[in-house]
Amino acid sequence: MKTYTNVKDLGDLKAAVKEALEIKKNRYAYKHLGENKTLLMVFFNSSLRTRLSTQKAGMNLGMNTIVLDINQGAWKLETERGVIMDGDKTEHLLEAIPVMGCYCDIIGVRAFAQFENKQDDYEEKILNQFIKYSGKPVFSMEAATGHPLQAFADLITIEEYKKTERPKVVLTWAPHPKALPQAVPNSFADFMNEADVDFVITHPEGYELGSQFVRGAKIEYDQDKALAGADFVYAKNWAAYTDPNYGKILSKDRAWTISTEKMALTNNAYFMHCLPVRRNMIVTDEVIESPQSIVIPEAANREISAQTVIKRILENL
Amino acid sequence: MKTYTNVKDLGDLKAAVKEALEIKKNRYAYKHLGENKTLLMVFFNSSLRTRLSTQKAGMNLGMNTIVLDINQGAWKLETERGVIMDGDKTEHLLEAIPVMGCYCDIIGVRAFAQFENKQDDYEEKILNQFIKYSGKPVFSMEAATGHPLQAFADLITIEEYKKTERPKVVLTWAPHPKALPQAVPNSFADFMNEADVDFVITHPEGYELGSQFVRGAKIEYDQDKALAGADFVYAKNWAAYTDPNYGKILSKDRAWTISTEKMALTNNAYFMHCLPVRRNMIVTDEVIESPQSIVIPEAANREISAQTVIKRILENL
Amino acid sequence: MKTYTNVKDLGDLKAAVKEALEIKKNRYAYKHLGENKTLLMVFFNSSLRTRLSTQKAGMNLGMNTIVLDINQGAWKLETERGVIMDGDKTEHLLEAIPVMGCYCDIIGVRAFAQFENKQDDYEEKILNQFIKYSGKPVFSMEAATGHPLQAFADLITIEEYKKTERPKVVLTWAPHPKALPQAVPNSFADFMNEADVDFVITHPEGYELGSQFVRGAKIEYDQDKALAGADFVYAKNWAAYTDPNYGKILSKDRAWTISTEKMALTNNAYFMHCLPVRRNMIVTDEVIESPQSIVIPEAANREISAQTVIKRILENL
Repeated sequence: MKTYTNVKDLGDLKAAVKEALEIKKNRYAYKHLGENKTLLMVFFNSSLRTRLSTQKAGMNLGMNTIVLDINQGAWKLETERGVIMDGDKTEHLLEAIPVMGCYCDIIGVRAFAQFENKQDDYEEKILNQFIKYSGKPVFSMEAATGHPLQAFADLITIEEYKKTERPKVVLTWAPHPKALPQAVPNSFADFMNEADVDFVITHPEGYELGSQFVRGAKIEYDQDKALAGADFVYAKNWAAYTDPNYGKILSKDRAWTISTEKMALTNNAYFMHCLPVRRNMIVTDEVIESPQSIVIPEAANREISAQTVIKRILENL
Repeated sequence: MKTYTNVKDLGDLKAAVKEALEIKKNRYAYKHLGENKTLLMVFFNSSLRTRLSTQKAGMNLGMNTIVLDINQGAWKLETERGVIMDGDKTEHLLEAIPVMGCYCDIIGVRAFAQFENKQDDYEEKILNQFIKYSGKPVFSMEAATGHPLQAFADLITIEEYKKTERPKVVLTWAPHPKALPQAVPNSFADFMNEADVDFVITHPEGYELGSQFVRGAKIEYDQDKALAGADFVYAKNWAAYTDPNYGKILSKDRAWTISTEKMALTNNAYFMHCLPVRRNMIVTDEVIESPQSIVIPEAANREISAQTVIKRILENL
Repeated sequence: MKTYTNVKDLGDLKAAVKEALEIKKNRYAYKHLGENKTLLMVFFNSSLRTRLSTQKAGMNLGMNTIVLDINQGAWKLETERGVIMDGDKTEHLLEAIPVMGCYCDIIGVRAFAQFENKQDDYEEKILNQFIKYSGKPVFSMEAATGHPLQAFADLITIEEYKKTERPKVVLTWAPHPKALPQAVPNSFADFMNEADVDFVITHPEGYELGSQFVRGAKIEYDQDKALAGADFVYAKNWAAYTDPNYGKILSKDRAWTISTEKMALTNNAYFMHCLPVRRNMIVTDEVIESPQSIVIPEAANREISAQTVIKRILENL
């Protein structure tokens, strides 16, 4: 593997999950792979899980790890070519990226959608410049349109908890006070569409996701109907994707909050969320604290998805 | 050891100091203990000594170390249950804490008193949530009411410098421009009351510390009398503890500043302070730069106290 | 080597470059040197290259590395003696420096010129306090008047790319929107004056550098004349050094920007810059993206210059 940005980079998905579960049993078995190798983690945005789990994954593999927070102790970066740089930005990405590539063997990048320009976001302008100019293998630690380490961890978690061969998995929109990118639901759909599950997406009208991610998935605008018989409820907020409302909040309707009543519609489903989660907006205290909530084991699998991806990149260096 | 928040967690105090002094002689002798173990250091507040010395202690023990500054590159955390999280706080401690626990073997936590609610501070609300919810051994890197790594380092230092079997140790309040927590004097009293020393506390009226820390210690409101014959002078500012003045500054009287004249009252005492110290408020330039000032060896022992604590936790994993 | 602040600390310069090129071929050959040794990197200012390359260099040598950003998660530091510290600065450098020295074996320091007081800057007040009070070997990661890791990397790069025994190297001033220190041009001159090159400096009148760095170098006020026949063009902005204009911007004349037309005057010269660079102020997009631009390999050599310096310090511990 040279790049990790979406489900296709994993190839055979069943094999990838199997490899992840093997790694989970013995996470220090591959320490030789990372000897004298350096992982650079570049953050343009805040992070808790990704910061810790990816660093841990690199260390499990014997790597040296370096964390770089752009905007904290580094220089502000220009991203446009042709600009006369007489403002507050000290360095251009076109220099900064290959420079970062000089001092490491693998680069992880976090660069959220900025909601200023849909085309820039959906062309993954920053992530793709890293892929093009860094000279090193690059993996996404959540970019503008996808969060494939999260979705891979989600799939591992579903594999661990499922009670039937082909569980019903429902991705449901839920309300939130701020406009959030579509990266998590995009990647979750990207993965579920390739996995052996019965996948349904539910959200208010106007919140349709990009067809490149939704593909053939069933869309059900009535949340209660969608939740009926679900084995896994995956809640997430996102801002509108479709024009002319890209990046806008169309609803904060707390009737979509996942509550005990909503969970009662399901087949005793497990509750999932990528975290961080706004309690009593996305989900009530009762549901997230219930035995059916598997948000913590789901988060714990972030270490495993990251380690599987980095291991494969190391094997291919 | 599973938790380290106060002197009792060390058990036999003489044995703990002896172990610390053994570690100091050969600090790389226990590197095998930390192999494939990860230390996570979580800071809700600023830190220099604790940041460096605890990281160094973990590395001495062969651990992987990860530093997380909440409020810098992570998410803002909600601490109250039941809140509808539609404000600026993105994540709840009730998720963040077990998530942090997923990616490490031991957690150090720094969370100062906030002086907003005495009960919250003195119940160690944040530290205790880490102990309760992280699923991993937790040690205090200075919490609301105690700084036991500092007090342990102080005791080690007194053991190294004392000239008599049972030295006189004076904890003296000193002026400071800002309201400071009682964590350091609390823990110092907590330790001195269990150590083989003649312990006296001096401060202006109104600055009484909590009785759970002071216990039977002698309180002398006349600083000059307290300093008479002292072998060690331990200066520190703190804000008022007793109601209704909790968290308030009652005095900035520089007559309490430790000066050459004050030190002349002692038995050629050593001067100690946990640092950071405000010069010419707490102590004059002359005293802190004098040969009797042992603030630097005291700070150096922070590495040793941290390593002793982490070693014991590792041995108990 | 105990201290690294200027070219003289390297001794025989040809031998140093030779050693660097050997290290570059096999950068993990000296991992035993750094075992159980800790590198502390202290930043008073922003950093990308230095942060990453020096950390990488320490790791290549098997060291534990700790990064400390003063002003981010540490305490604000007072630098003047005698101050009554009742303001916003919590700790004095006179305590903070020896404390930092307690927890490491080698210290790298970044502390830029502040342009408040020329004498303070040119006496290297902060760097020299680290040298005097830390008790540990100190190297400059760019201080007020010099950036010797950069200049050493520059010399290594010139050695790798030169086509003639004694190339013509031109240091040219270029425009920039903000007042920048003289550290980089000072050190570049310091190194070039000791290297086997034909060294010319060009800048507008009023931008003369300190004679301790310029020494016998040729100064040519006409940029076009200076560039004629150049093998290497080293562009850099700096603010005025000479009184009464110390720290001031005297010109933002973009006629000094390095463009294709300017490069056409040279002997097909390589373009160099220490980065970060303001595109279309210092240099046009065309020139910095041309095959003659060697800014990235130059940056990559920062790892090598740092590793050579740290290796020599380790060998001398």
